[in-house]
Amino acid sequence: MTSALLRVLAGERIDPPPVWLMRQAGRYLPEYRALRAQARGFLDFCFRPDLASEATLQPLRRFDLDAAILFSDILVVPHGLGAKVWFVEGEGPRLEPIGDAPALRRLSAAGIGERLAPVYEAAARVRAQLDPKKALIGFAGGPWTVACYMVEGAGSRDFAAAKSLMWRDGALFDELITLLTEATIEHVDAQIAAGVDCIQLFDSWSGVLPEREFERYVIEPTAKIRAALRLRGRATPLIGFPRGAGQHAARYARQAGLEAVSLDSTVGARSLAEIDQTTAVQGLLDPILLLVGGERMRAAIGAQIGLLRERRHVFNLGHGVLPQTPPDHVADLVAAVKGWRGG
Amino acid sequence: MTSALLRVLAGERIDPPPVWLMRQAGRYLPEYRALRAQARGFLDFCFRPDLASEATLQPLRRFDLDAAILFSDILVVPHGLGAKVWFVEGEGPRLEPIGDAPALRRLSAAGIGERLAPVYEAAARVRAQLDPKKALIGFAGGPWTVACYMVEGAGSRDFAAAKSLMWRDGALFDELITLLTEATIEHVDAQIAAGVDCIQLFDSWSGVLPEREFERYVIEPTAKIRAALRLRGRATPLIGFPRGAGQHAARYARQAGLEAVSLDSTVGARSLAEIDQTTAVQGLLDPILLLVGGERMRAAIGAQIGLLRERRHVFNLGHGVLPQTPPDHVADLVAAVKGWRGG
Repeated sequence: MTSALLRVLAGERIDPPPVWLMRQAGRYLPEYRALRAQARGFLDFCFRPDLASEATLQPLRRFDLDAAILFSDILVVPHGLGAKVWFVEGEGPRLEPIGDAPALRRLSAAGIGERLAPVYEAAARVRAQLDPKKALIGFAGGPWTVACYMVEGAGSRDFAAAKSLMWRDGALFDELITLLTEATIEHVDAQIAAGVDCIQLFDSWSGVLPEREFERYVIEPTAKIRAALRLRGRATPLIGFPRGAGQHAARYARQAGLEAVSLDSTVGARSLAEIDQTTAVQGLLDPILLLVGGERMRAAIGAQIGLLRERRHVFNLGHGVLPQTPPDHVADLVAAVKGWRGG
Repeated sequence: MTSALLRVLAGERIDPPPVWLMRQAGRYLPEYRALRAQARGFLDFCFRPDLASEATLQPLRRFDLDAAILFSDILVVPHGLGAKVWFVEGEGPRLEPIGDAPALRRLSAAGIGERLAPVYEAAARVRAQLDPKKALIGFAGGPWTVACYMVEGAGSRDFAAAKSLMWRDGALFDELITLLTEATIEHVDAQIAAGVDCIQLFDSWSGVLPEREFERYVIEPTAKIRAALRLRGRATPLIGFPRGAGQHAARYARQAGLEAVSLDSTVGARSLAEIDQTTAVQGLLDPILLLVGGERMRAAIGAQIGLLRERRHVFNLGHGVLPQTPPDHVADLVAAVKGWRGG
């Protein structure tokens, strides 16, 4: 029997909807924290197939989720390109910033398969252990979002360096986006070869772009990734997550040819109504409602399922599970979704 | 002669549009940094009429801007309510967090007039010195945004504490929003009495709210502020800035009865087209284009003025001037706006 998630991505409407949660494997789980303590650093954790596969499977041991998502990070791609990436405990990622042509041209997508082999090994191990009725979701950042980190050398509030490069030296920035698009195609293709059933592309910083640049640096690369996978015979469904850019979600999904679009919690009714019925929708529930829990959360879950009843819907949050979330609230969420009976 | 900004806010369309910039008084100006060094801390700076009025006037000595904006901070309102507010150098604001009813009930709007007297004194001094053809814009935070800081006790990425309180204890949160709405009315009214010509309400964190909560905690309080000022005979125009929530800008401006709406750089063509022609539009230009400067910036300025030619338009950025911006770029921007001759 195919998993409920894949059936929805393939065109079915299922009542109640399948459910998984962004960052369902993460710091809110004590068993995750124990596992994390075994790795030397965060990238080491992502690159240890034993640890990454176990982190991926942990939430499915506790909760009746319909899918596992490969435990990884969007910055494995710059690592795969030969960039230096590390994580400062309690602060976040650091990279040697790419600001000029020589720095960019030292990178190459040719080494992706070898450098990221442990990621694919982790995916294969998960698929071998995972209940066949559960989907395994592969994981990649959107080229724009990964480019932001590569140019800034870290996270940022305003991505001034990335946007400055984009406007100051469009040719160089295009070259970086093209390289990342190619690398992402290789990375996603290898995950599919290793056994993932569908892919989510996280474009976490798409919400900082003006409309024209959103089209050029988010929609176009995503469309290229979708088209390249089809050319390689990969019909594997693609879920896109243009976080903070819900106003463009309909166009993003349509122009990129995505099977599903994941929506953050701020997406309004009008933006939602514009999304083609042929595209599945996922997301929306504010992760802070999961943190709050109780009747307030259950009411919001019921309202969301009711609102999307006529659509192909994958239940999820609008953003990742927060580290301070009580695991019991996740159990309550899954029970509320699975137990939903519409009026 | 009335200032070009006030004429646009009163219903005229002016070619080329009047121009001012959010954070036009700020760290990118060496004379601002010298002035800032004379104050003991940031709040002391805001509360010294000699320094705050001088900071307000500095950019108008350099640039042919159509308006000054009172140099202040949105957190003077919690201070006026009796909350403890301070700034940590290089980090940002800190407040004693409001998490329960006793903490909230220790605050009162009754002391606003006295506690914030130096702010009004600064406004009066600016109005006395400012060219009568230039408008003076008053300044306040939106109640939602100020509530975020008061509940968190600091800035935040996700405003988990503020949103948790909103969903966990709606009655208490409503009480906080009501108090802030009343305090904002007093604060704005006193600025008008001191001589400001119009007001901008900064709802900087409105972009983190789901649609229903945006309606309740952003649109409704803003509408109450607008209505209360009218009841007091204040026809003074109000510009609202629902940062990050451009998808709701049309409804926000219409339901709150605002004379103008300020738009961040991510607002798309469709959201813009929905805004009533009776509402003036302001903003849009990405502050990073000002940082980049040159032909790229001038082309974007020309495109924006052309795009908004049929509308009542106030030229501005989508967000504040960044501290690393060369002052010459601001001079170039003003010259490009003033020199614009449409084809």
